[in-house]
Amino acid sequence: MPEVIAVDVGGTSIRAAAIDIDGELRRERVRETPAADGPDAVVAAVRAAARELAGPDVVAAGVVVPGVVDTAAGIARYATNLGWRDVPLRDLLTADLGVPVVVEHDVRAAGRAELAFGSARGAGDCLLVWLGTGIAGVVVADGRILDGAKRMAGEIGHVPVWPDGEPCACGQRGCTEVYASAAGIARRYLARTGVRLAAAEIATRLHTDPAATAVWAEAVDALGLALASGTLLLDPAVIVLGGGLAGAGAALREPVAAALAARLAWRAAPEVRTSPLAGRAGLLGAGLIAWEAIREGR
Amino acid sequence: MPEVIAVDVGGTSIRAAAIDIDGELRRERVRETPAADGPDAVVAAVRAAARELAGPDVVAAGVVVPGVVDTAAGIARYATNLGWRDVPLRDLLTADLGVPVVVEHDVRAAGRAELAFGSARGAGDCLLVWLGTGIAGVVVADGRILDGAKRMAGEIGHVPVWPDGEPCACGQRGCTEVYASAAGIARRYLARTGVRLAAAEIATRLHTDPAATAVWAEAVDALGLALASGTLLLDPAVIVLGGGLAGAGAALREPVAAALAARLAWRAAPEVRTSPLAGRAGLLGAGLIAWEAIREGR
Repeated sequence: MPEVIAVDVGGTSIRAAAIDIDGELRRERVRETPAADGPDAVVAAVRAAARELAGPDVVAAGVVVPGVVDTAAGIARYATNLGWRDVPLRDLLTADLGVPVVVEHDVRAAGRAELAFGSARGAGDCLLVWLGTGIAGVVVADGRILDGAKRMAGEIGHVPVWPDGEPCACGQRGCTEVYASAAGIARRYLARTGVRLAAAEIATRLHTDPAATAVWAEAVDALGLALASGTLLLDPAVIVLGGGLAGAGAALREPVAAALAARLAWRAAPEVRTSPLAGRAGLLGAGLIAWEAIREGR
Repeated sequence: MPEVIAVDVGGTSIRAAAIDIDGELRRERVRETPAADGPDAVVAAVRAAARELAGPDVVAAGVVVPGVVDTAAGIARYATNLGWRDVPLRDLLTADLGVPVVVEHDVRAAGRAELAFGSARGAGDCLLVWLGTGIAGVVVADGRILDGAKRMAGEIGHVPVWPDGEPCACGQRGCTEVYASAAGIARRYLARTGVRLAAAEIATRLHTDPAATAVWAEAVDALGLALASGTLLLDPAVIVLGGGLAGAGAALREPVAAALAARLAWRAAPEVRTSPLAGRAGLLGAGLIAWEAIREGR
């Protein structure tokens, strides 16, 4: 039975699976992203993850990566968290696997999965926000993903929520993701306490650890501001929070919804949901675009 | 020769004209908005402006107003600068004029005019920002106006550029329009100097009056932040500045373009243009929607 290889390259982990035409996952594997070993090590890990799943039934592959992606050329142009610049991922993986390979932006792919299987199904206008190592978003308007002029729409992670605030890896200051991404939360907790903890771990300490409480509250405040800007500009019916941090569930959703409402004096806030796809949205989206490439005969 | 009546109700002036099928303006009139005399006086002034243009050739009327508009019901729901709440404008004017009347949001109508005649013609993705007494915007994605779930998209005037900053009439703090609308600039100049001047007048004093220079620079900074958020979320090819303040031309466009670029560390800024339609975009848009109502047999 034919299948595609799907790979979701994140700043923390590389998730890979074979996916059949119905979107069923097979042989899912997760490995750590060797970001500390440099950009080439990450490329090697992605290739290894894909090769492990190779087989006679594989008809295509979809790889999704963060940052700026040139889909037409199959090149990962720029990804801060991976140290990548102009990585020709499509050509590398096509050589490895011998099947058509499609490269896409991870959050755009996750948005496709949310529209197909998740919280955004049926919502004509929504804003999908992925809270991972970094933060990115997808704008859905009238049921379609809004690309923008250069396919760079949805970058809510770099909206300047606190102008001239803490520096961001992007070169700007006060970006949403400085405060509210998994990396940002961990970094800010470390700065306060000297203790290195993952954001997910910090989320479990909200009622017992004042530093965790404070850092989380600041993340929620930053998200409330960014989502207020997003709501005012886009007027979504629903805001879907996805990515690893969304695993915190109500501990994230409830205060974020309250922070958003508090920043909107004169209009109602859209509903805030967490994604039911959790960490798998990118992977499912990678599978979708690979199947799409087959259907379109690319 | 048939014509429609177009009325553009602003916080400062009410502009009215008859417009033929080719978009040619006839008998254009501008009167001051009697906002200080209360909401009913503004309604009376709008009705008088429309009645003045009535005649046997008039086949429809389009009225455009700021704030929140219920187009389907023909009701101006909420307009801070006019003091309006639930004004049944369509029914009032239909009774006065005896022709079909369409009520629309002024900036959405102006966006239609920009797409048809102005700076946005041919730009698939753009952000139109109207700098008048208040600030509002229209998002154009793939050549179409983005409505949003409740037709409330584009409210860039209330994006929180300086969270917890100066209070806004909307009940929020630090909104773009607190700093960068014509009313905001005049109010902030008055607070600094004790002198009451219109924003357009302040714009002419940039090289001679330090208070004017400072207030203008703060307006530009606020706009740079709001447009950075808009660019990151929407990725427009072009940003068009319209409304009364856009009459300042290069004195507005050049520093705003620089401020926007300075707030975008990792991506190029879209081109910033001022509208060639100047103060007439809303009026032309009101004409467009009136003609559209006739074509659609409403």
